[in-house]
Amino acid sequence: MTSGKVTRINLRSLVLGTVLGVSIMSVSAWVSGQSKSADKLPLGDKFYPSEFGADDQRGAANRLTPEKTLRAAQLVKQGRTIQLGRVYEQGMPMPGKRHFSLTIPGLPTGSPSGSNNIVHNDELVSGEIGQVGTQFDGLGHIGVRVNGEDLFYNGNKLSEFGDTYGLKKLGVENAGVFFTRGILLDVCALRGNDQLPAGYVITPDELSTCLEMTKLKIEPGDVVFIRTGHGKLWMKDNKAYGDGEPGLGLAAAKFLTDHKVALIGADTWAIEAVPGENKDVLYPVHQWDLTRNGVYHLENLDLEELAASGVREFCFVFSPLRLKGATGSPGNPIAVY
Amino acid sequence: MTSGKVTRINLRSLVLGTVLGVSIMSVSAWVSGQSKSADKLPLGDKFYPSEFGADDQRGAANRLTPEKTLRAAQLVKQGRTIQLGRVYEQGMPMPGKRHFSLTIPGLPTGSPSGSNNIVHNDELVSGEIGQVGTQFDGLGHIGVRVNGEDLFYNGNKLSEFGDTYGLKKLGVENAGVFFTRGILLDVCALRGNDQLPAGYVITPDELSTCLEMTKLKIEPGDVVFIRTGHGKLWMKDNKAYGDGEPGLGLAAAKFLTDHKVALIGADTWAIEAVPGENKDVLYPVHQWDLTRNGVYHLENLDLEELAASGVREFCFVFSPLRLKGATGSPGNPIAVY
Amino acid sequence: MTSGKVTRINLRSLVLGTVLGVSIMSVSAWVSGQSKSADKLPLGDKFYPSEFGADDQRGAANRLTPEKTLRAAQLVKQGRTIQLGRVYEQGMPMPGKRHFSLTIPGLPTGSPSGSNNIVHNDELVSGEIGQVGTQFDGLGHIGVRVNGEDLFYNGNKLSEFGDTYGLKKLGVENAGVFFTRGILLDVCALRGNDQLPAGYVITPDELSTCLEMTKLKIEPGDVVFIRTGHGKLWMKDNKAYGDGEPGLGLAAAKFLTDHKVALIGADTWAIEAVPGENKDVLYPVHQWDLTRNGVYHLENLDLEELAASGVREFCFVFSPLRLKGATGSPGNPIAVY
Amino acid sequence: MTSGKVTRINLRSLVLGTVLGVSIMSVSAWVSGQSKSADKLPLGDKFYPSEFGADDQRGAANRLTPEKTLRAAQLVKQGRTIQLGRVYEQGMPMPGKRHFSLTIPGLPTGSPSGSNNIVHNDELVSGEIGQVGTQFDGLGHIGVRVNGEDLFYNGNKLSEFGDTYGLKKLGVENAGVFFTRGILLDVCALRGNDQLPAGYVITPDELSTCLEMTKLKIEPGDVVFIRTGHGKLWMKDNKAYGDGEPGLGLAAAKFLTDHKVALIGADTWAIEAVPGENKDVLYPVHQWDLTRNGVYHLENLDLEELAASGVREFCFVFSPLRLKGATGSPGNPIAVY
Repeated sequence: MTSGKVTRINLRSLVLGTVLGVSIMSVSAWVSGQSKSADKLPLGDKFYPSEFGADDQRGAANRLTPEKTLRAAQLVKQGRTIQLGRVYEQGMPMPGKRHFSLTIPGLPTGSPSGSNNIVHNDELVSGEIGQVGTQFDGLGHIGVRVNGEDLFYNGNKLSEFGDTYGLKKLGVENAGVFFTRGILLDVCALRGNDQLPAGYVITPDELSTCLEMTKLKIEPGDVVFIRTGHGKLWMKDNKAYGDGEPGLGLAAAKFLTDHKVALIGADTWAIEAVPGENKDVLYPVHQWDLTRNGVYHLENLDLEELAASGVREFCFVFSPLRLKGATGSPGNPIAVY
Repeated sequence: MTSGKVTRINLRSLVLGTVLGVSIMSVSAWVSGQSKSADKLPLGDKFYPSEFGADDQRGAANRLTPEKTLRAAQLVKQGRTIQLGRVYEQGMPMPGKRHFSLTIPGLPTGSPSGSNNIVHNDELVSGEIGQVGTQFDGLGHIGVRVNGEDLFYNGNKLSEFGDTYGLKKLGVENAGVFFTRGILLDVCALRGNDQLPAGYVITPDELSTCLEMTKLKIEPGDVVFIRTGHGKLWMKDNKAYGDGEPGLGLAAAKFLTDHKVALIGADTWAIEAVPGENKDVLYPVHQWDLTRNGVYHLENLDLEELAASGVREFCFVFSPLRLKGATGSPGNPIAVY
Repeated sequence: MTSGKVTRINLRSLVLGTVLGVSIMSVSAWVSGQSKSADKLPLGDKFYPSEFGADDQRGAANRLTPEKTLRAAQLVKQGRTIQLGRVYEQGMPMPGKRHFSLTIPGLPTGSPSGSNNIVHNDELVSGEIGQVGTQFDGLGHIGVRVNGEDLFYNGNKLSEFGDTYGLKKLGVENAGVFFTRGILLDVCALRGNDQLPAGYVITPDELSTCLEMTKLKIEPGDVVFIRTGHGKLWMKDNKAYGDGEPGLGLAAAKFLTDHKVALIGADTWAIEAVPGENKDVLYPVHQWDLTRNGVYHLENLDLEELAASGVREFCFVFSPLRLKGATGSPGNPIAVY
Repeated sequence: MTSGKVTRINLRSLVLGTVLGVSIMSVSAWVSGQSKSADKLPLGDKFYPSEFGADDQRGAANRLTPEKTLRAAQLVKQGRTIQLGRVYEQGMPMPGKRHFSLTIPGLPTGSPSGSNNIVHNDELVSGEIGQVGTQFDGLGHIGVRVNGEDLFYNGNKLSEFGDTYGLKKLGVENAGVFFTRGILLDVCALRGNDQLPAGYVITPDELSTCLEMTKLKIEPGDVVFIRTGHGKLWMKDNKAYGDGEPGLGLAAAKFLTDHKVALIGADTWAIEAVPGENKDVLYPVHQWDLTRNGVYHLENLDLEELAASGVREFCFVFSPLRLKGATGSPGNPIAVY
């Protein structure tokens, strides 16, 4: 895919954007901002306070109202559950120097005790558990350095809320529970590919088309899952899985945040195209979603069973571990229908 | 509470047991077994194969049918969610030599990259994460040594399924998702205490009475939560929290397993009375529930908000981390109503 | 001990200082600096480049010449060895949120293999291993924030050499091996106490007197051990051990750095008095020794057997683990005589 | 190298054995045992009590007498030190599922405190630290399963001394300090190879020849280092480093234990040939040395600088970390001459 083609699709997506009620102005401002000043991207001049208030720490999770929960529960028609979380195991794909180790101390951990000879096992885990395997990115995960300060969601300064033993603000324990409507957009199926190639930039146009095919409309507080097929590489070809990935471009991310989703998930490790549209800009969708819009990510999902089920709208439940001051959480999110 | 009194209540519970459809015979066989041969307790002569088949690894989670899920979803009337999981933090109560450490490597973990100056944070956790804080006990957690063999659920021998880097059978990844009906039995409120004292043995009679007050009947695949008030000590008086606890006696555990629950939760670290009825027998309820009956435990829950809400029947959701070969899982289970 | 008394002893130490070839000027400059401007303390206006060159990363370990090693070896007369390192175990004293966990995965870790049925055990350790138990403080451990920059030995900026996965400069792997002369100064015995109280500020005068009693002179590249008796509390009364400690004051530290020692050790967790002379100034001896002078620390030593042996001059050997980019190292340093 | 050739060299080594004062009888008994019954190998019918007494936990470290220490110190003629320990870093070669992670929590770990604005860094390590990188194998590391019991040095049963949180016997804290004579046998140079190939079985003959070239005799309590050149692969070709290695065969191991060494070190991860002489017998030298003879191993050494120095006899110092109940220790052993 050439970058020229990417641009063209982006422009088309702007048009579609209006149809769907997304302001062209904001998109074009962002696009023109892109050409003028790299440092304005993707966060722009002023990315805070957030729309949820200057003191807010929950971001788009504020959209998870009781009404959303109630309507999500009503989507359960058959009582079937699909696990979207992957198995955590040593050897799973992992970038850089993160690690994951699980051992059984002792085996059994506790020797026979009492006249009933009870024995027990524990497991000892070491790892960046909020950022390995299936993972939920919280608002303390991604920021931007501006004039020597690391700024996160709502302009919080890491120099103020950072703490060696857990963030004092924006910790994942603030996110609360996601019990809301989920929608699957199967871009992989749309493209008729077995899997989209690394670096493939998903456009708003493609998301719109997928959405039209589901006959659904994204509503505030929904969570949207993007299937790329890239997840088929998991534990099959870990190097290829990690070397790059298909995913959202900035315009597609904007499409989703303009629709006021609470969370975006994918069968990839970063949700967004890697390499992205502009090789000088790294993980811009992360900054756009998390830092600017307070929209959460769920990564390294297994979306195959869900895709195969034909279900495109479902009750989605994910309850992050309340790890005090953590930037993310492991998990096993579910689709129930 | 004297042991004489405990016995008396136990006998009463046997009568109640019949009313509720529980066979007196099995209970009395067990009680007589208790007096004759300590080694028959609580597992008895032959605790396997399980009722779910000799090869089963899911235990009582087999009761979590689509019908249960569907009916649980229908319990959501207001869309309100209560988190039952506690915050994980260093310094929380923990027995023996388990530990929990959470740090932010680097702060930020990733230095500014790209023209967009992105920074990111991870968290590094070390600990027995399936057995610290709010925890789910899986079927690989508890067993019994018999003739030099450590036997677990369905008679699985640790010498065969044990593995240093994760159990080859009975791992928590087999449990699946709990999306089912939850019932709160508030024994603390029943007794009119602020909290039940350590060593207080909850009887079937008390459970029955609580149940009658809710006008509910326990059905197969339900999960039942026992509130003792002991959880009020969490992070307030950790020593008292850990020194002992009120909880189920064996007869009460049998009452619940006879009702074919899938999981039992409590606001304590062991569900059962510590010290228990018989000081020579350690954690018999664990063996009874997990090893013999395949019924799961959820420990160190926060049940205060749920109790205060007045809700006694709710949609319960818990999706254990799919930690390969782990004996348990951390989590943030929820009650939705 | 009143601060007035401390001052008087300090003044006496200045006189002694001259006798021992230490410039009064520098000390008095430092003392006057103290009264004028707290922020000049203990590092002063200009604490770098170090005397070992602006690019140096080894600090006082540069004094560990072959000649020192050769002469140290010649101090071995009886072939006797005393271990100064403590046993590492869970439950040992530890400040803040550091931790130490050691488990045996599997037990055995490796199941019987081969026709020879070999089994093996490993140990899994998690902890701040360079900063728990007996520990060696390297030059990446202590710094000072000046105008928003964290400056370490030789003025290295943490913003430049810091790295999430190991410091890019000043890592403990640069320190090399300490095989040099050791001298024990038994201040505890001098004072005739069983142990010096927490907050006791050791003065240059006391060090001089101890030294005179040994009839030794400190030479460049020596390592000096200060016995306070505080170590008797280790694993006996961990709370008292950690709540405070006797140790060097800044003047005594200067006495040692002026004598060009390579390393200072003690039977305490910080070498220096806690609380110190000036309660607003925290761990000034750490800054003085490590950040300014490149002189290393060895903490949480067991000096009892050495003290009881009567040996005051010995061959000292310590070889830090070459942990890439680490700030310290665990160890079991030895005195051989 | 054919197995026929190996056998021939072995026979030659038996003759050499007598010359060097090693009983042919014991070797031939062992060799004949080899042909008759695989299960007698390498430990034989009765491998305990050890020669150091039935209660001994130190094994060959008992040979480290003050006289040995004194004579070792006298080997220091130039005061030069060579570090034999490798740098510990993520990504170093490691078998199976062991791991090593080092991070700097916080960076700085401790924020500016006091009027002196002190900051500090720690390092957090997770890993099987006694069994990754340069490592010392203690007597709790290797055993044999006989009739369902895991037997270790001196016949200690793991079922009795094993403990989840550290072995109750044979822990590395019992080993004490190695300050003794070291001898380098450069088999790689003898063979004129850049490095010996994986699976190359070093024979007693080769050790004898190397020894003759040094004009030294191995004496009780010496430590002997075997250079194979395999260490050149470290961090250059980690896969090749780990896939196999040249090293001692059983006869060569016996040659060394008959000479009553205290410890054997090598520039490989297992000291012994992998694959070995008999592919059905795994790591027999480990059992022979550690389990039967109480002779320690030091693995993953860097012997290149030592070899290049021309020094073949030196003062060797290694002081294991006193990790309570650990099976091994990391370290930075040194050769001083």
